[in-house]
Amino acid sequence: MWGGRFAAGPDAIMEAINASIGYDQRMAAQDIAGSRAHAAMLAATGVITDSDAEAIREGLLTVLSEIDSGTFQFSTALEDIHMNVEARLKEIIGEPAGRLHTGRSRNDQVATDFKLWVRDQLDAAEAGMLALIKALLAQAEAGADWVMPGFTHLQVAQPVTWGHHMMAYVEMFGRDLSRVRDARARMNESPLGAAALAGTSFPIDRDMTAAALGFDRPTANSLDAVSDRDFALEFLSTASICAMHLSRFAEELVIWSTAQFRFVTLSDRFSTGSSIMPQKKNPDAAELIRAKVGRIFGANTALMMVMKGLPLAYSKDMQEDKEQVFDAADNWMLALAAMEGMVKDMTANRDSLAAAAGSGFSTATDLADWMVRVLKVPFRDAHHVTGTLVAMAETRGCDLPDLSLEDMQGVHAGITSDIFTVLGVENSVGSRMSYGGTAPAQVRQQVARWTEILGA
Amino acid sequence: MWGGRFAAGPDAIMEAINASIGYDQRMAAQDIAGSRAHAAMLAATGVITDSDAEAIREGLLTVLSEIDSGTFQFSTALEDIHMNVEARLKEIIGEPAGRLHTGRSRNDQVATDFKLWVRDQLDAAEAGMLALIKALLAQAEAGADWVMPGFTHLQVAQPVTWGHHMMAYVEMFGRDLSRVRDARARMNESPLGAAALAGTSFPIDRDMTAAALGFDRPTANSLDAVSDRDFALEFLSTASICAMHLSRFAEELVIWSTAQFRFVTLSDRFSTGSSIMPQKKNPDAAELIRAKVGRIFGANTALMMVMKGLPLAYSKDMQEDKEQVFDAADNWMLALAAMEGMVKDMTANRDSLAAAAGSGFSTATDLADWMVRVLKVPFRDAHHVTGTLVAMAETRGCDLPDLSLEDMQGVHAGITSDIFTVLGVENSVGSRMSYGGTAPAQVRQQVARWTEILGA
Amino acid sequence: MWGGRFAAGPDAIMEAINASIGYDQRMAAQDIAGSRAHAAMLAATGVITDSDAEAIREGLLTVLSEIDSGTFQFSTALEDIHMNVEARLKEIIGEPAGRLHTGRSRNDQVATDFKLWVRDQLDAAEAGMLALIKALLAQAEAGADWVMPGFTHLQVAQPVTWGHHMMAYVEMFGRDLSRVRDARARMNESPLGAAALAGTSFPIDRDMTAAALGFDRPTANSLDAVSDRDFALEFLSTASICAMHLSRFAEELVIWSTAQFRFVTLSDRFSTGSSIMPQKKNPDAAELIRAKVGRIFGANTALMMVMKGLPLAYSKDMQEDKEQVFDAADNWMLALAAMEGMVKDMTANRDSLAAAAGSGFSTATDLADWMVRVLKVPFRDAHHVTGTLVAMAETRGCDLPDLSLEDMQGVHAGITSDIFTVLGVENSVGSRMSYGGTAPAQVRQQVARWTEILGA
Amino acid sequence: MWGGRFAAGPDAIMEAINASIGYDQRMAAQDIAGSRAHAAMLAATGVITDSDAEAIREGLLTVLSEIDSGTFQFSTALEDIHMNVEARLKEIIGEPAGRLHTGRSRNDQVATDFKLWVRDQLDAAEAGMLALIKALLAQAEAGADWVMPGFTHLQVAQPVTWGHHMMAYVEMFGRDLSRVRDARARMNESPLGAAALAGTSFPIDRDMTAAALGFDRPTANSLDAVSDRDFALEFLSTASICAMHLSRFAEELVIWSTAQFRFVTLSDRFSTGSSIMPQKKNPDAAELIRAKVGRIFGANTALMMVMKGLPLAYSKDMQEDKEQVFDAADNWMLALAAMEGMVKDMTANRDSLAAAAGSGFSTATDLADWMVRVLKVPFRDAHHVTGTLVAMAETRGCDLPDLSLEDMQGVHAGITSDIFTVLGVENSVGSRMSYGGTAPAQVRQQVARWTEILGA
Repeated sequence: MWGGRFAAGPDAIMEAINASIGYDQRMAAQDIAGSRAHAAMLAATGVITDSDAEAIREGLLTVLSEIDSGTFQFSTALEDIHMNVEARLKEIIGEPAGRLHTGRSRNDQVATDFKLWVRDQLDAAEAGMLALIKALLAQAEAGADWVMPGFTHLQVAQPVTWGHHMMAYVEMFGRDLSRVRDARARMNESPLGAAALAGTSFPIDRDMTAAALGFDRPTANSLDAVSDRDFALEFLSTASICAMHLSRFAEELVIWSTAQFRFVTLSDRFSTGSSIMPQKKNPDAAELIRAKVGRIFGANTALMMVMKGLPLAYSKDMQEDKEQVFDAADNWMLALAAMEGMVKDMTANRDSLAAAAGSGFSTATDLADWMVRVLKVPFRDAHHVTGTLVAMAETRGCDLPDLSLEDMQGVHAGITSDIFTVLGVENSVGSRMSYGGTAPAQVRQQVARWTEILGA
Repeated sequence: MWGGRFAAGPDAIMEAINASIGYDQRMAAQDIAGSRAHAAMLAATGVITDSDAEAIREGLLTVLSEIDSGTFQFSTALEDIHMNVEARLKEIIGEPAGRLHTGRSRNDQVATDFKLWVRDQLDAAEAGMLALIKALLAQAEAGADWVMPGFTHLQVAQPVTWGHHMMAYVEMFGRDLSRVRDARARMNESPLGAAALAGTSFPIDRDMTAAALGFDRPTANSLDAVSDRDFALEFLSTASICAMHLSRFAEELVIWSTAQFRFVTLSDRFSTGSSIMPQKKNPDAAELIRAKVGRIFGANTALMMVMKGLPLAYSKDMQEDKEQVFDAADNWMLALAAMEGMVKDMTANRDSLAAAAGSGFSTATDLADWMVRVLKVPFRDAHHVTGTLVAMAETRGCDLPDLSLEDMQGVHAGITSDIFTVLGVENSVGSRMSYGGTAPAQVRQQVARWTEILGA
Repeated sequence: MWGGRFAAGPDAIMEAINASIGYDQRMAAQDIAGSRAHAAMLAATGVITDSDAEAIREGLLTVLSEIDSGTFQFSTALEDIHMNVEARLKEIIGEPAGRLHTGRSRNDQVATDFKLWVRDQLDAAEAGMLALIKALLAQAEAGADWVMPGFTHLQVAQPVTWGHHMMAYVEMFGRDLSRVRDARARMNESPLGAAALAGTSFPIDRDMTAAALGFDRPTANSLDAVSDRDFALEFLSTASICAMHLSRFAEELVIWSTAQFRFVTLSDRFSTGSSIMPQKKNPDAAELIRAKVGRIFGANTALMMVMKGLPLAYSKDMQEDKEQVFDAADNWMLALAAMEGMVKDMTANRDSLAAAAGSGFSTATDLADWMVRVLKVPFRDAHHVTGTLVAMAETRGCDLPDLSLEDMQGVHAGITSDIFTVLGVENSVGSRMSYGGTAPAQVRQQVARWTEILGA
Repeated sequence: MWGGRFAAGPDAIMEAINASIGYDQRMAAQDIAGSRAHAAMLAATGVITDSDAEAIREGLLTVLSEIDSGTFQFSTALEDIHMNVEARLKEIIGEPAGRLHTGRSRNDQVATDFKLWVRDQLDAAEAGMLALIKALLAQAEAGADWVMPGFTHLQVAQPVTWGHHMMAYVEMFGRDLSRVRDARARMNESPLGAAALAGTSFPIDRDMTAAALGFDRPTANSLDAVSDRDFALEFLSTASICAMHLSRFAEELVIWSTAQFRFVTLSDRFSTGSSIMPQKKNPDAAELIRAKVGRIFGANTALMMVMKGLPLAYSKDMQEDKEQVFDAADNWMLALAAMEGMVKDMTANRDSLAAAAGSGFSTATDLADWMVRVLKVPFRDAHHVTGTLVAMAETRGCDLPDLSLEDMQGVHAGITSDIFTVLGVENSVGSRMSYGGTAPAQVRQQVARWTEILGA
């Protein structure tokens, strides 16, 4: 395989550490697409004959069909997908196969294959996120006015609505979607034709291969083209942030499905039992999704560390890129799909949510705001008065609306019975009409906005 | 400070772990800008009087001038920049100060401050990258046709030009620039008015404060607005990838300035000596830049781990966001500036570069390509022939052009004396005319393209 | 400072990126201790005179007192703590100061200083963990028989005791303690005398300086001595695992102090309020402790990435080691102290714990085990029967003991009324007498074992 | 599989995210060993009959032989290795199989299996490191007095010996070995019998199973036993630091085998060629080893993030532990073996090393030290004089010994011709006789010390 250069062949350890065919065979379709585009271009520019190009292109289709049907024999001695495909091509079509590698190198070839693979995954991630967002919109629309506690520090803060909470995740995944699209646009340049590192003296047409493979343009510097793994790192960074969002939602689902919260019921299909405790119903899918951020960000860490301090152009270290991205992509897609399934299946326990929404003095802010609005008390003073009333209620073991007007007036003389109108949870939620607030009307407006965005 | 709620005050440990004023005072200007915009809006919407707003806005300018002049007394007991500013405002203007915090919370306030700070840093990073790119363009223009070895695996592969190598980094920093701009556009939404987490019942105008602070629009979900730290994570991811590029260039500079390579001479101003070895001239700046990717990606890791699995909305864990971003931003800007300085100051040692360019059989590919082009030999066969010739030259301790025509014809009968025209380094480089290739004409075309981009 | 080597001085950027005095002044005491030991040894071996050594040693004490009292003027132009101290020494004692740096280099000097600093922190961490373990033992002893739910997947699994839960953390911090001690023993070798990288021709006595500084022995290879940062990485790894344990406990405290769980009441001193919601009492200290694992492991990531791929011996990249370790150490100690304080102050809500312990069919396993033990049913069959009974109870909205004997016999004919004796929570807990189990007697045995270990 | 609890079965997504049999089948031998020990103990304590235990133990051997021979049919529907083995056992031996799971749970079972697996890997790592150390000792012994340049900042600093450089890595891998042994001792406690989380009411004998499986003792807290993954994290931390050492050595090998350095020749078996450049011989194995630290530390990051903030006891997130550890272990062992192979095969180019050792004013420190020792000049002054002489030599394009005595005396009058005796590389190296220094005698002493340690 190395021409006449080497006296000794690689031994078993070297083969084990060096060969990539065990995993890069996942890029077979991309490799063949790239080679077919390259062959067509070589013919169009007169570097090889039309008949050679035709033989190569047909032969590659045969190879692809062998791989698809599982009859292809992958060889570790041939190291990687590129050499496996080319060696088989030679068996099928003979001498013209030797002309395919003109004006390119494995360095630009693998960069092209890998970019095509990553691009496909960005598209898959977009589809997965759109499906998840739709599932969230359905939950938000159904529960635009279902009250539940809003938490800060996991302490009840103010009442919000179920729909509002769902829409918070729509915003997060919406940003993830935007990151995916930016990443795709930025990486969509073809490295093919950069050759080993310096470009080539053959009169190749890089625009032609770029267009054939759906790239927007060829890369502008051949050294960079074979050294660059930004697209993989940006994929991993983007996936990591999305996985972090998934971990937050998963954490909420785990907490919400405890016996103590009972805010949601997850479907049996996304839960499991115990080998020893017959009564258990465990939110396994949520827990596994929560964990995926570790795996995906671990891949990001791995590749960042691999790339740190590598001189130009291609170094073999970069072969460690693919397994990290493959694993992260698989788990990202899986986590998106599992979360979509859970969201579709889950049932909000409206009674539990409503009961919890009113607990914990959740409308204390409304009381303070009322004093500011009606009595023109400065907010800081209103805050202090309300704090005193909460302490009073806590001591008595009652809720704020259970205090008498006299009790309240004992703390601040200006309070009138009008105060009781703002202490209800529904009133509280309905009053939060600021843009992006939790009022059902605001929630429905956001659902409509997103529905229009997705429909467009 | 907590109104009537707490019996006991926090003790020293709690103060140490809880107070953020030690570092968040860096956001004083942003905090005051946000408060001034908020006060103006509260007056415009009739929530507070014009005279109160005016007193607040003027008082805040006084506070800012105290901070700028170093006379402000920061208090740890007041925890953070928000409370420090507001407390001082109250000392200055009295009662109206208590009306400022109407319709907002520290949760949206800190998100606003932090976003404004990060946005400033994205702008600073853009400026730093533009300056670095310009320094690289100057090197590339000067050395568009200086030959040097192109490496893969740090082994001499094919000759390239100095300008081509410099332009590879222009491409990398160009992508970094594009990531910075995408991040800035995505994060430029105002959280102000999200209040604690649910929005507010005051008739605030979030578009007005957003516009006043240079945001494109208000955020669309109040829960998300106070929970979101994507902008900080995307800042850190973007900075990490850029720092990785810097680490690669720094590694090259360290290697290039060894006695063994002597490709560049760094200026004294970016080098240091030794406390024990009087002869040393060390590339300290390059080494420190190489290290910064660790620090910046460490910050990324830290914040990813902090955010993992946090339920909505605000949790105190998120207070750990700022020190990571501050440190990463400082070091990113410093590394960009130091690299710009080194690039401006450094001298390419043209003789060393040229001598090395011709060594190591660097034009072997040209020989193989000639056989393909002229003799119509399939590339794989030409590769094999060339390998045999390289082994022959290596055995004899000579270079490829030193082999006789007879030697060559002994390996492949078709070789003619024309072959010697392609074995020269200058010819080799000049022949790589494919788009993005290393030919001086291609390099100059890319310099021109970038100059136009930056000029626009 | 660099002797006659440099024409140009470093400019502002270089000073900013290169100088370490801003942070390495924290190692002043270690630096002076190392220099005093070195001077004494130089005199003992005849390299310098006794009177010079005495002047140096006394002068260094003066420098230390100036630093301790805050009167020392640190100079950025002098770069680091070593040069700052030595320059001041020269001002104080004159010419003999120039003899101190004989037979050493800043490379071994900084390694020595940093090791001494890290060793102090390992000792501080040990003290912090011992204090925390004692606080946990006190909670465990008091609540050895307080029943509470044991969770898996955050679902009620089987009843356990409060003491048992506390003792789980004692085991974790006990392992952390053991890791700290191993790390301390491993790193306790003196680099002093390795000089720049090759050792020295002066007849120094490295055993003497090692002993004077409390090291077990000198390092055995001078190249390694100045290149090694394992001790810092092992410190960070050990701290990270401990911080992970703290994060788990902190998460539990956050969940346990929700209105929905009410398992514990945290003291006011480790909680805070809200600037907008007067009723809030937030577990801020627990949340901040939960976050610290990010910061500490972020530092670990940073230093791992810095060290990756550095050739021997010293490289300037390694100057990035200290800030990471300083920050991680500060936050580790703070988190340990805050957790100790919270554990001491917190109150278990025994009624809530007991009520929750009996919910969720928590004794279903006991039912299955009873069938195995008494009826000799294979466990897998008993598991199936119990699952059916749980489903029956769930459908009826009752708990397992509320099913009638007839109901039970309808599922498995062999069940007798004896079954009701194992369905009680106290019985369940008491029966878990396997070693390390949750039975109060087992818990008390472990408390006794740990008390003896700590007393020794 | 979940008894009577679930109405709906898991669908494809859930199976994909939930099933672990695809990878945890690697723990089959450990799982069966654990079950066999458990069955023997259940019989010894009278929980099951001897004949049932015998049937179980024999049946498990049959299962193991099926797995070893590749005839075992793994089922994804059965989720994991535990259920696969038990289900097959039931097919083979019938009803007694249902008694095996008495007094244990999958939670303690998987912890036991995984610990046994990790323990095996720690032993494998020890063997790998011992072999690598032996290869390094052989190189060190052969080249104890071969001079080469010692570098700091990759600039020639002082001459050292090849043996000394090799021994630096012996020290590093020696510390790694010590960390592996500490980790093994710490983790060697048996979780078996902790059951789901609370221990069990069956009269099991945990000491018996612990002894049967080679553990030193049972774990002391059942909650901790099923929640603990410290052993995996310490494995990953330890592997990461070792991989960092490997990355440093690999970096040196890459640099040393460049055309510019030519310090070593790597064997063909650990090198590869190029698909386009026939002359290339690339240090692929070294590059791939250099990259492995990313992968291994990435796994460490992943698992740290997974464990962050998990409440007790077992959570399904923890299922993400195994793939990370499996992959890290495989790559660690591979990297150790490949490095051992490279070290054994590589050839130091003594001439290149010697030539480089004398370049770059590498004995300038010797000159300064001579002035201190002979002329009693303070080191700081001697350093300044030497710096001036270096500058003089640099200006003249000569080396230090090429300066005349007059030149030298012009800078410092006290210099005598004796100075020329210390400027030779061999003299310089031989004079570094401080403990751990680079003098050949010191190197041989360290080789002897390590040979004795390994022989013991």
